[in-house]
Amino acid sequence: MSSTVERLAARAAALDSADPLSGLRERFLLPPGVVYLDGNSLGALPAAVPPVLADAVHRQWGTGLIRSWNDHGWWQAPLRVGDAVGRLIGAAPGQVVVGDSTSVQLFNALSAAVRLRPGRPLLVVDRDHFPTDRYLAASVARLHGLRLRAVPADALAELLSREGEQVAAVLGAPVDYRTGRLTDPAAVTRAAHDAGALAVWDLCHAAGALPLDLDALGADLAVGCGYKYLCGGPGAPAFLYVAHRHQAGFDHPLTGWNGHADPFDPTEEYRPAEGIARARIGTPPMLSLLALEAALTVFDGVDPGRLRAKSLSLTGFLLDCADDLLAAQGFAPATPRAPERRGSQVALRHPEAYALVRALADREVIGDMRAPDLLRFGVNALYVSHADVLHAVTTLREIAAERAHRPYLAEQRAVVT
Amino acid sequence: MSSTVERLAARAAALDSADPLSGLRERFLLPPGVVYLDGNSLGALPAAVPPVLADAVHRQWGTGLIRSWNDHGWWQAPLRVGDAVGRLIGAAPGQVVVGDSTSVQLFNALSAAVRLRPGRPLLVVDRDHFPTDRYLAASVARLHGLRLRAVPADALAELLSREGEQVAAVLGAPVDYRTGRLTDPAAVTRAAHDAGALAVWDLCHAAGALPLDLDALGADLAVGCGYKYLCGGPGAPAFLYVAHRHQAGFDHPLTGWNGHADPFDPTEEYRPAEGIARARIGTPPMLSLLALEAALTVFDGVDPGRLRAKSLSLTGFLLDCADDLLAAQGFAPATPRAPERRGSQVALRHPEAYALVRALADREVIGDMRAPDLLRFGVNALYVSHADVLHAVTTLREIAAERAHRPYLAEQRAVVT
Repeated sequence: MSSTVERLAARAAALDSADPLSGLRERFLLPPGVVYLDGNSLGALPAAVPPVLADAVHRQWGTGLIRSWNDHGWWQAPLRVGDAVGRLIGAAPGQVVVGDSTSVQLFNALSAAVRLRPGRPLLVVDRDHFPTDRYLAASVARLHGLRLRAVPADALAELLSREGEQVAAVLGAPVDYRTGRLTDPAAVTRAAHDAGALAVWDLCHAAGALPLDLDALGADLAVGCGYKYLCGGPGAPAFLYVAHRHQAGFDHPLTGWNGHADPFDPTEEYRPAEGIARARIGTPPMLSLLALEAALTVFDGVDPGRLRAKSLSLTGFLLDCADDLLAAQGFAPATPRAPERRGSQVALRHPEAYALVRALADREVIGDMRAPDLLRFGVNALYVSHADVLHAVTTLREIAAERAHRPYLAEQRAVVT
Repeated sequence: MSSTVERLAARAAALDSADPLSGLRERFLLPPGVVYLDGNSLGALPAAVPPVLADAVHRQWGTGLIRSWNDHGWWQAPLRVGDAVGRLIGAAPGQVVVGDSTSVQLFNALSAAVRLRPGRPLLVVDRDHFPTDRYLAASVARLHGLRLRAVPADALAELLSREGEQVAAVLGAPVDYRTGRLTDPAAVTRAAHDAGALAVWDLCHAAGALPLDLDALGADLAVGCGYKYLCGGPGAPAFLYVAHRHQAGFDHPLTGWNGHADPFDPTEEYRPAEGIARARIGTPPMLSLLALEAALTVFDGVDPGRLRAKSLSLTGFLLDCADDLLAAQGFAPATPRAPERRGSQVALRHPEAYALVRALADREVIGDMRAPDLLRFGVNALYVSHADVLHAVTTLREIAAERAHRPYLAEQRAVVT
């Protein structure tokens, strides 16, 4: 077995030394000795964030005070940061706004979507995606008198081809948050449009993790979070994409004053701003928003194709390491082996997933788990190396061999994500 | 006139030297030379914030990474900070949650309120309060098939006594955001309850500005922002109060996963958490939330009655100074003179309000304005002195006398608030 590890170590070293993106790790402040494979839950701290935040606090808030809304561009931040996110998801300027949580943005997006397609009685959602999607879709359906239909991701296109004319909108996700399986959003988008329905995408596990081109895809609406692969910090504001063609009809229920046509000379009745600005709601959490803006500079000058290639190299290598070192211990990959079917994470099934993830954390290898039996390893190619991946796998093998996770077997609480 | 100023200066000096709260100013990092009278829009920076935020970024996010959701109490923060806000608004623990913007919290509160009173066709709102209240009330009414009735604050109780049985909920505000006029929320709350309706309060201009006792008042629901008198920073998360007796029936539309009974082992259908935790929505902006938590320590050990007494002394003194020094220049107070009818701000009417506020800012006296003709001066008694107030008034008098605001007369854009 040690010769297997040596062979994999040599391969990791060769891949890392040939990695044109290895220098990007210096854009992050990673704690020494930690292998961080939970960037799919909370991205690492970009080095650009602390000085920007210190400036936002001391100079902008402390000294500029109220004047900073104008003098330091706070007012423009939701659209400015929106355009920065837009560059990572293939959205031309003026289609993305940043602020609020993913849940709030999703509520707004789905509400606006069903209002854009009145008279259609069904709202369709990917049954297996993150539960907040189902919950909010159910709430929107209830408020607008629609029925909710929750089906597996695989069945979305088929349902649309069969009953699409009943469907107002479909909510899907390119990346399965548990297994990392990638679904081609083009097929579902096409099927939705063929039926006259709208396609809404949850990009939480996709934005920053793989190249996206919403405009080319013809996506109607999309949301995503700022704190996973975008590295914006805990609870970083989420984003909402509204395709240009839908903005004039974007009629959302969260009609806060920030989205008014003239926020400082408001009318008796709400009059929405032109363009994506109408999707603004209330005053955004500026410190968190400016942290996200600084964080997004980690992508500056990074070729999306190269980042994707490295991500696939890392997840492929992780699957290979698991085959060679973990299969005998009862770990079974849940992530597709075909590169075109993988996001930027690898999930392994093991009945003692929770305890194993806890024991890994004790040895400074941080992943997470999803009930009941998935160990989840997110790789952010901006700061993860092949050597990190091998170290995680060998550490997991040691733990399993030593039964070092035994103290945690009695507990069964999920790790927060 | 100079003897008038001398007399007022002597009075300011006497009041400030006898002020038992004067030491609290040291809890803030105020820029030297600035008189800051816009804390009703954005509170000054508490000295406690920068070190807490630096720790949150470097140690908690950077080093603790995902583990900080448990190890540093991030997960508990919305309710923990909620209880801290609760101490300032007279809410016993377990009734306040912090997160999202005021607009989002208001949408949730009003939606839940009308669902608590089904079958009643009217939603009533204070016509003259901050417009976002009307806009969101209109949206909630539209979604739930109610009619919106917007009436002046003075007319709320009368409407309730006449047509209250048609009313699901009434949304009011104790403090008029323009004039600072204080309305007794007890009368409206009583009238609402007599009619079987619910009373929802917008506390944006009241929380931290004057003593509140929501529990004693019998308020049903309330919201407020974190960035004005609470000094939580730009766009600080807002709060939502749900009285214990309404929590089991609190059925809100923003059913994000954070409010689920078991967020880490979610069910197919949304199952709300017990207690105020069900009002959580998505993942809150943690950096902004921790900044707010640190900011709230400025109230530690401060007696609310003393703070209110100082606030009234400041606003009363401002009105006196305006009488003596500004009346001849065409300034007319819009704020009631009776102390029991004042919040913690003073508004003066002048047709050139915008230009005057701009010219004041050039001389480092920062207030704001509301179209068309109100100069607005918020006094936060934690850091404003009587000498500050006199300095603001004499500066305004100089500007008016010199017509120093003339360059701004052509412009007429509102100052951001």
